[in-house]
Amino acid sequence: MSSTFPSLSAKLAGLQSSAIRDLLKLTADPRIVSLAGGLPDAELMPRERIAAAAAAALAGSGCLQYTESPGWGPLRAVLAERESARLGRRVPLSEVFVTHGSQQALSLLAEVLLDPGALVVVEDPAYVGALQVFRAAGARIVAIPLDAEGMRVDALRELLAAGERPALVHTVSNFHNPGGVTLAPARRAELGQLAERYGFWVVEDDPYGELWFDRPSPAPVASYSRHVIRLGSASKIIAPTLRVGWMVAPDQVCRAVELLKQGADLCGSALTQQIATDLLTDEDWLAGHLARVRDSYGTRAEALVNAVRATFGERVVCTDAAGGMFVWADFTDGTDTKAMLAGALAEGVAYVPGSAFAAEDGYQGSMRMCFTTSAPPVLAEAVARLARAHAAAAV
Amino acid sequence: MSSTFPSLSAKLAGLQSSAIRDLLKLTADPRIVSLAGGLPDAELMPRERIAAAAAAALAGSGCLQYTESPGWGPLRAVLAERESARLGRRVPLSEVFVTHGSQQALSLLAEVLLDPGALVVVEDPAYVGALQVFRAAGARIVAIPLDAEGMRVDALRELLAAGERPALVHTVSNFHNPGGVTLAPARRAELGQLAERYGFWVVEDDPYGELWFDRPSPAPVASYSRHVIRLGSASKIIAPTLRVGWMVAPDQVCRAVELLKQGADLCGSALTQQIATDLLTDEDWLAGHLARVRDSYGTRAEALVNAVRATFGERVVCTDAAGGMFVWADFTDGTDTKAMLAGALAEGVAYVPGSAFAAEDGYQGSMRMCFTTSAPPVLAEAVARLARAHAAAAV
Repeated sequence: MSSTFPSLSAKLAGLQSSAIRDLLKLTADPRIVSLAGGLPDAELMPRERIAAAAAAALAGSGCLQYTESPGWGPLRAVLAERESARLGRRVPLSEVFVTHGSQQALSLLAEVLLDPGALVVVEDPAYVGALQVFRAAGARIVAIPLDAEGMRVDALRELLAAGERPALVHTVSNFHNPGGVTLAPARRAELGQLAERYGFWVVEDDPYGELWFDRPSPAPVASYSRHVIRLGSASKIIAPTLRVGWMVAPDQVCRAVELLKQGADLCGSALTQQIATDLLTDEDWLAGHLARVRDSYGTRAEALVNAVRATFGERVVCTDAAGGMFVWADFTDGTDTKAMLAGALAEGVAYVPGSAFAAEDGYQGSMRMCFTTSAPPVLAEAVARLARAHAAAAV
Repeated sequence: MSSTFPSLSAKLAGLQSSAIRDLLKLTADPRIVSLAGGLPDAELMPRERIAAAAAAALAGSGCLQYTESPGWGPLRAVLAERESARLGRRVPLSEVFVTHGSQQALSLLAEVLLDPGALVVVEDPAYVGALQVFRAAGARIVAIPLDAEGMRVDALRELLAAGERPALVHTVSNFHNPGGVTLAPARRAELGQLAERYGFWVVEDDPYGELWFDRPSPAPVASYSRHVIRLGSASKIIAPTLRVGWMVAPDQVCRAVELLKQGADLCGSALTQQIATDLLTDEDWLAGHLARVRDSYGTRAEALVNAVRATFGERVVCTDAAGGMFVWADFTDGTDTKAMLAGALAEGVAYVPGSAFAAEDGYQGSMRMCFTTSAPPVLAEAVARLARAHAAAAV
């Protein structure tokens, strides 16, 4: 028997496992309070409601077969209704496409929208799942910085004026991962205008928009232009185990994605899509459920932000936690968060260094902290541990 | 608002919807007996057993989170155990990878194993889901004919001797879709030897191997060489709605697929994977369930084959139905099955013309018939309708 295997594709050489995934393996130690994760809180997931929906879907004549590639019809119908309300126009069924989590939408869209060498604009810091997909597609990537009002659309405007012609601009419009910020309404309008003027697609990646704490998220970027492809997900509002994401896009984009999905995995699970349908159509229940999640996350976010500000004062600037799952913090005193991590782990706290989210490099003084899975006193203790690690690093 | 959208990727021009999918839309008419489908029988799917497993998975502390990219640990463990028994060696967990249906394994493997322009050998007629994936990967495709003993491995040997160097050879080893035939043991051994001698990968695509009627399928191709990547699926033995497929492959291949799966869809559904685990570990129940499916499909297959032979005599040569879901028939009298289809639909019967499965062209006198979803008297009626369409076409 041969011990040397045939070779693998040359393009794999450029791929590497996410630094975050590798870090998460280190933080499985129960003595470490992890702010490094990116998971919604399993305790807040509606286990009993999901179980009831599963039982209903599996009783009687529920579908056990392959389902249609664009998704279970009734799920597409309720998503069309919800998105119509959000976008202020009637979204037809043909423009709604269900994917295996919204990550699948990103990866199929990269194939549908990008030729090799195409220019893709991402935000900096960036959602690493998007970076991974665009890199694998062979795109040329340019990063536009975030500020407190989200993507610096003025910087994009200058890039376009200088002659750059992106095929696609990716934005996490609400409660950015990792940046924590939300794109301001005026910038949303301008982004839509630029997309039409210069003929590019915007992918509005919005898994967190319903997780607002004080006031609803602004009208979607997709409400300003039909050049915007909008992605949503049940993972953060119901549970990741359903693997239900969705896309709202022009018919021609949906049909192209449909062809690729047939090759990628034929179709999604009728079972988990029926469960999602049941929960999303149960409006009163859903409203109550979302209110509970918002309340809980809001309390945790406030505890984390207050502790960081009280502990570090002017040595750290961190985002207001207005929604979503993350707080982004920048040290102003020259702290290197990657260098500090070993000390932090020794003190019993984990975070993700900002450099893990850099499109190129940078963010050596930054970190992402996830507040979803720890109670306020635990978050306060995590910040106390961080302060000890910071003090030790400064010696 | 602009009415012209930005352009889509140029590579989409080469993609088209499967002719079979388009045909299936025509056969939704309840007056038509469809032999055209490729679906397992929903009536034989273990609805109550799945519901019990779902309830167990959703009770207590079952996982609602993202799961690991290579799959739910206990599912990989039971698959490793089952495959160890099948392959006659201890398969470690690291060599088992769960995918979103086995179609996803095919599509991720195409990315992992193929550089653009690589040579891929398929069987002729071919599984169209594989053809679609290899074409999308930009592979050069060469087709090797099937005969009653499966792939003509002698023809592959000649191709290799002539200097062709495939990166990958794809085979549906048991109860071929669409060809109905099973690769003979001596050919399995030679295919493994050739893979090692010439340094190519074999993808042994085996969704039907457990659906044998009279005697168990031969030892897998993967039992002859470690150059063989073996694919399996729960879709045909439990239910497609789970979207659970799996791959047994060397560790380096699994790790490369893992990197790509993170970009493709992060991970599968812990819920459907827990359900699959529950059913696959319940050995006594599973043995009884598979016996019922085999018995039912075997009776239907026999009814179809007997009716075809009694009706058409020497004008048709059709495969013995020893397992799986399909019978392949060749007209020997010059009948053009694509031309005859309109007449057949008018008589109330549908099938898939052989040309839909041709890697290049050919099989104008052939058809694929699926026997899984019709009772024996319905299958006999279908063949009577086919005979009327055939008689009309011959006029």
